[in-house]
Amino acid sequence: MRIVDLIQKKKLGLEHTQQEINFIVENYTKNRIEDYQISAWLMAVCFKGLSDKETAYLTKSFIDSGDTLDFSSISPYIADKHSTGGVGDKVTLVLIPILSALGIYSAKLSGRGLGYTGGTIDKLESIPGFRVELANEEFISQIKKIKAAISSQSPNLTPADAKFYALRDVTATVDNKSLICASVVSKKIASGATSIVLDVKYGSGAFIKTQEEAFELGDLMKRTAKLLNKDIDFITSSMETPLGKCVGNSLEVIEAIEFLKGNYEVDLYENTKEIAIKTIINCKKAPNEESASQLFDEVIKNGLALNKLKEIIEAQKGDSRVIEDYSLFSIGKNKLDIKIDKEGVIKNIDALKIAKIAKLLGAGRDKKSDIINYGAGVKLIYKNNDYIEKNSTVLELFYDDIPKEKLEEVKIIAKSAIELK
Amino acid sequence: MRIVDLIQKKKLGLEHTQQEINFIVENYTKNRIEDYQISAWLMAVCFKGLSDKETAYLTKSFIDSGDTLDFSSISPYIADKHSTGGVGDKVTLVLIPILSALGIYSAKLSGRGLGYTGGTIDKLESIPGFRVELANEEFISQIKKIKAAISSQSPNLTPADAKFYALRDVTATVDNKSLICASVVSKKIASGATSIVLDVKYGSGAFIKTQEEAFELGDLMKRTAKLLNKDIDFITSSMETPLGKCVGNSLEVIEAIEFLKGNYEVDLYENTKEIAIKTIINCKKAPNEESASQLFDEVIKNGLALNKLKEIIEAQKGDSRVIEDYSLFSIGKNKLDIKIDKEGVIKNIDALKIAKIAKLLGAGRDKKSDIINYGAGVKLIYKNNDYIEKNSTVLELFYDDIPKEKLEEVKIIAKSAIELK
Repeated sequence: MRIVDLIQKKKLGLEHTQQEINFIVENYTKNRIEDYQISAWLMAVCFKGLSDKETAYLTKSFIDSGDTLDFSSISPYIADKHSTGGVGDKVTLVLIPILSALGIYSAKLSGRGLGYTGGTIDKLESIPGFRVELANEEFISQIKKIKAAISSQSPNLTPADAKFYALRDVTATVDNKSLICASVVSKKIASGATSIVLDVKYGSGAFIKTQEEAFELGDLMKRTAKLLNKDIDFITSSMETPLGKCVGNSLEVIEAIEFLKGNYEVDLYENTKEIAIKTIINCKKAPNEESASQLFDEVIKNGLALNKLKEIIEAQKGDSRVIEDYSLFSIGKNKLDIKIDKEGVIKNIDALKIAKIAKLLGAGRDKKSDIINYGAGVKLIYKNNDYIEKNSTVLELFYDDIPKEKLEEVKIIAKSAIELK
Repeated sequence: MRIVDLIQKKKLGLEHTQQEINFIVENYTKNRIEDYQISAWLMAVCFKGLSDKETAYLTKSFIDSGDTLDFSSISPYIADKHSTGGVGDKVTLVLIPILSALGIYSAKLSGRGLGYTGGTIDKLESIPGFRVELANEEFISQIKKIKAAISSQSPNLTPADAKFYALRDVTATVDNKSLICASVVSKKIASGATSIVLDVKYGSGAFIKTQEEAFELGDLMKRTAKLLNKDIDFITSSMETPLGKCVGNSLEVIEAIEFLKGNYEVDLYENTKEIAIKTIINCKKAPNEESASQLFDEVIKNGLALNKLKEIIEAQKGDSRVIEDYSLFSIGKNKLDIKIDKEGVIKNIDALKIAKIAKLLGAGRDKKSDIINYGAGVKLIYKNNDYIEKNSTVLELFYDDIPKEKLEEVKIIAKSAIELK
């Protein structure tokens, strides 16, 4: 088998066999096929697509390229979730404590932010001392002990996916649904969960623009898992406007803590609850949506979920005093208010523009090696459909030292992000 | 400008500006863009194509990446030709002596064989002592002196094309017409000729399968040259069966010498003459096809063309005694006759299959580093439309030591190459 023939085969739109997909993934992962051949193959895939079977083979090859976690000695039900990436998406920080407070073992491997998408791992690192890199054994043993852990993914899990993803990122081959599917589903299956709920985002702040496309991707991931004898649930959710009121690492953790204290935004609450209900039913903690919904509200109300967050922070060596004392977070020393010189009702605060601002202020990365500022970010004082008086502050921007021109750019984008009805 | 954005642009089918094409070519040639990004771009080009303008920009960038030759102090008319590659195509070896015998300055830069296509440079190297690598100054000064030189292309001419071609070869991105066009036309323009005639081959032994496609490619090359203020002529010619009767390096040079002695196959004669007539008229040596045709026949008949070949061989340090003594060529020490156990009329001897046999016998290369056997090859005893008696030898195979299994494979292909009516 020669890789150049396999590139040609995909270029012609023909279907690969499992053996061919294995050949590609295995040899590339072991550096026996060159980057420039895989990138040509990936581009051909973008044009000709992969069939359901090929997508499942690719997913399987990614899984087989590394370790897989096994929690079967701990519990038959292990929960995990994944969001395809949004702006202000701090659902994991809220959901995992809620689930484990309900007795559901939750094993969450997360990523760092890149481009306009934030990452749970960065957010957690804004908690002083918090260890995000747990070895597989530490991860499993913490879950056994306190029913929850959130860690960055071990490089030993689906290393093939990591190598493919890095190449896709620099060759404009990120957006193919089968490639996205194989990347997400392989990681989720390798991490050993039995209940996996995916949140496929669409809208200006997501890489998928319409609900229809989001549904297609979700359904492809469900079908792919099925072909590999695993069940995956998915929801689709809008990302036209940021989720909740905070965007930026420290700010989002504070918002998550507030959520668990009972002070939440409706959109964040609903999104989190939708994923939670599916998980609670999957893990047999409730027979139906109604009782799952009650359980969800209960552990917020009785403080068990907040307490679980504290436990997680402490287990991962973070300073759990942050829960009561937000001044322990680093927050940008400068604050800029964005005011609107009209009165009216907010039609939309654009997610992509807010993400751009947050990145310009230092909260995000252009490339993996960029250093982020945990304290930088944007606070939405109002949300969509809120009435504002003339000269109301709609956004508060937090930052440290950034060049003047950049701040001017930020101001322009910020004003244009707010649309009145 | 970021290469990943340009890949995305081509992926979406948008047209690049001249600045963008220059950015890609210049930075890649200077190793400031990675192979894996260019291969993704090339694959996107295979799917979305390049416009005439983009093709001309690419061609221009290739030309500008290196030196260009200038013969204007020698003559206003400098002839060159190029074949897109065929089996048994020894036209250059015959044409260049004929043209320069007619007083036309002929500057021919040629390549080596790869895959199933032979290369003029390899053929010339089968002449003992023949120097194929002339420095630009040697090339020019030989042309000034004897009106002809045939050399391998200097690495200083269109180095960008060489880098792109090497990458296309291993990423299944060879077959796009615009990429082929830019590669051929840039080399021809950089080499300084004023009369350029391209022979675009089609059929089983060519990479283009139909005359229609060959015409399209020829016309694209003509249009591209036009956009760069150069004139290019082209012909299309069939490559269903080998050109002439010999395939293999030494064998083909002998056939070329025989041609100039007046012993030629009709197909090789007609193909060569068609290119010659266009060139003779372009270079103002004859006013019309009829008189060009007469001149062509004259210099064969009066021995001037053969004498010119001798001059070229001597100028390039080859042993010109080969012209009278073919035993000075290395010819495979083993000979195998392929007989057909039926009588009939030959419908076709398949070019691709003959090329495969020649390569298996050692006459060709799979990769650039392979060493070829100049004495290996195939002689066609009969040509299409010839009547053969039962058990006639149709092919003679020449080779040195090759494994028994390989020889068995050769026999099977050889028999299947011959089709009776």
